Amino acid sequence: MTKSDLALHGHSESHFAPMPPDAVAYATSTEEVSQIVKICAAHNCPIIPWGTGTSLEGHSIAPRGGITIDLSRMDKILAVNTADMDVQVQPGVTREALNTHLRDTGLFFPVDPGANASLGGMTATRASGTTSVRYGTMADNVMGLTVVLASGEIIHTGTRARKSSAGYDLTALMVGSEGTLGIITEVTLKLQGQPQAISSAICAFETIEGAVNAVIETIQMGIQVARIELVDNDAALAVNAYSGASFADAPHLLLEFHGTDASVAEDAATFGEIAAEHGSQGFEWSAKLEDRNRLWKMRHEAYYAMLASRKGALAIVTDVCVPISRLAEALLETKADIAASGIPGPIVGHVGDGNFHSALLIDPDNPEEREIANALAARMAKRAVALGGTITGEHGVGMGKRSYMEAEHGSAWSVMGAIKTALDPQNIMNPDKLVPPRN
Amino acid sequence: MTKSDLALHGHSESHFAPMPPDAVAYATSTEEVSQIVKICAAHNCPIIPWGTGTSLEGHSIAPRGGITIDLSRMDKILAVNTADMDVQVQPGVTREALNTHLRDTGLFFPVDPGANASLGGMTATRASGTTSVRYGTMADNVMGLTVVLASGEIIHTGTRARKSSAGYDLTALMVGSEGTLGIITEVTLKLQGQPQAISSAICAFETIEGAVNAVIETIQMGIQVARIELVDNDAALAVNAYSGASFADAPHLLLEFHGTDASVAEDAATFGEIAAEHGSQGFEWSAKLEDRNRLWKMRHEAYYAMLASRKGALAIVTDVCVPISRLAEALLETKADIAASGIPGPIVGHVGDGNFHSALLIDPDNPEEREIANALAARMAKRAVALGGTITGEHGVGMGKRSYMEAEHGSAWSVMGAIKTALDPQNIMNPDKLVPPRN
Repeated sequence: MTKSDLALHGHSESHFAPMPPDAVAYATSTEEVSQIVKICAAHNCPIIPWGTGTSLEGHSIAPRGGITIDLSRMDKILAVNTADMDVQVQPGVTREALNTHLRDTGLFFPVDPGANASLGGMTATRASGTTSVRYGTMADNVMGLTVVLASGEIIHTGTRARKSSAGYDLTALMVGSEGTLGIITEVTLKLQGQPQAISSAICAFETIEGAVNAVIETIQMGIQVARIELVDNDAALAVNAYSGASFADAPHLLLEFHGTDASVAEDAATFGEIAAEHGSQGFEWSAKLEDRNRLWKMRHEAYYAMLASRKGALAIVTDVCVPISRLAEALLETKADIAASGIPGPIVGHVGDGNFHSALLIDPDNPEEREIANALAARMAKRAVALGGTITGEHGVGMGKRSYMEAEHGSAWSVMGAIKTALDPQNIMNPDKLVPPRN
Repeated sequence: MTKSDLALHGHSESHFAPMPPDAVAYATSTEEVSQIVKICAAHNCPIIPWGTGTSLEGHSIAPRGGITIDLSRMDKILAVNTADMDVQVQPGVTREALNTHLRDTGLFFPVDPGANASLGGMTATRASGTTSVRYGTMADNVMGLTVVLASGEIIHTGTRARKSSAGYDLTALMVGSEGTLGIITEVTLKLQGQPQAISSAICAFETIEGAVNAVIETIQMGIQVARIELVDNDAALAVNAYSGASFADAPHLLLEFHGTDASVAEDAATFGEIAAEHGSQGFEWSAKLEDRNRLWKMRHEAYYAMLASRKGALAIVTDVCVPISRLAEALLETKADIAASGIPGPIVGHVGDGNFHSALLIDPDNPEEREIANALAARMAKRAVALGGTITGEHGVGMGKRSYMEAEHGSAWSVMGAIKTALDPQNIMNPDKLVPPRN
């Protein structure tokens, strides 16, 4: 192991200070993970799981040092079951690698957080993304797991049956547990049939309320929208500068429809009518692959575009999610709050789910800006809870959102702590993340 | 309280011996439930929650006596949010009462286990039913809960946002926990838009394999099937006798399609073609409400029809669920096993999910028959696990399936026990159900 190995695994994609582990173990099997955990348990040594390091809340950095278990070499696709439309993978398989492998089967794995994350990491953070309005989140798409517990014991959760009422849903408990209850070493995932036809659409709106009301009506009408993304005026301008796009200085919706040739044309047309009633401008749709690819490439690059819009900036990325009836309110209050702060904060969002992100762009050398941005982020989290929503729609808690957990969960947060203590009495599994500090 | 009150709450709809509680409390609020639980905790008194008593695994009987908390008077619909397509209800609201209330909103609650169960009970057992192939189970449709814990503490889980990554999914942990971790006193549920059009269809098949292969192909093609039910030849004859139907002596599929006028006609036609390739006979479809109502009334009465097919019989109802690629195998082996046993065992199933039930009809006064049936049920459970499936698709564990839990979960069952101990150290919450016996 080299020093750079430690530095790499102490670094995160977001704004956290580096916190390297004492050592990195590159595991190649469940059995090996179990052996490593047993040794760590015997020495009371913290264990941090690592997938691709694309998490945004400092999930995989090592505040107490310890051993980082890098799972990227556990990258085998173990079984594709086409009749059952499921797949078993090791945790280091990335979503792009899986979909490349599936290309000729007529099936695909739909959850798309943007980053080419590992499927183990996506499971551990309960990730979602642009397609969740149609296909759900990792919570909806993980059928079963192999998990190494804090004792080194290996358990299997779930089955390959489509449903079960056989006791506590340990799969659901582990999905989103962020390595604090165990290390995921195998994942069984649901797959979807590749749609016969796909169309995409884009349009600008006069107002954010107009865009949000178009989203609400689209969903209520049961239109089979597979993605419905908001790019606000600030983000649109950032994408123009970064990707050479020519968005108007206005909020935009980007959409994708999955179905048959006839249905995707009909859905796009129906959406166009709904959008027009809500003040849309310049509605365009296309069934061409190259148009669609260009659109989603821009959307996937939006984070980097926003980062680049302020030279040398660091982004504090927020991730609230609210009931869709409160979304316009949440967005408008947030935009006013950001504007008043003086910190640039372009917004993109998976608005079909009520989820949006602002990238608060701060000068890393200016502690005052960091303080202002943190206070802004805290107000957004509080506002989301007040509107019946959540402090994090898809990025998870990690170190970054821990201080807001009590606001959302009240005493239920200590129930999470009680479960953590029951399954990890030594507190060695990814300590200082997600659960309350232990007394 | 009268003696009959105790007897009523000691009785179950299935084959369990009556086990009455010492007292029944009719709770009317979360606060009242909390007070009752606090008193019980102080006296180490078992607490058993009660909805409508329609569970099939003895979930609501009182093997150690104690207090049954009857929640049927907590039957208020607290809020319908049409823009967000969700609803908040007290646990005693039944699914039929909810759908009657929703009739004019354009929305409906899709999970349909047949019985007019309470929504609290359906949540506690992770129920599903005929529509889950399209709309999912209670696991997919519960967004949040209010729960009274073993200490009497009241917690709120989940939010009204469509997704969240904010820590352990306590909602998912509570869904299917059968009253062993807490008492559910409020439920937030997702709703669906009432489909514009519905069609139903029915056809017989030469063989069970043919029927199952038609199901697999239908799902793989992405046809929007909302129900796809198997009625085997024995169940078909029972329904003929009970409901005056005229099914052939053959396995049947009963289907429902949801969509637009055009799509439900197209889906039914496409299914008809698929079915013909797999040896269907007498395919009929209809978009008429009265045909559909007659069809599903028969299906919902199938349990009573099967019971009535052997005079004075008691039913031991099995509930396995397997990956759909193994379904034909599971059904054929099961039918051969039943035939060899000499006990009548007609089969119905939610075959789109790989889930089926046999009603093993025994003479209640013949202990030998009960033994044979129990052995049959145990073999079915074991077979399901060997095929990658589960011992219970939707009925839950209760008292009836507890002895099979280790076969399915291995050491993960003791993880369930550890969680139970952490949240209910006195073991007062619905004891002797679901989790391993405590040492």
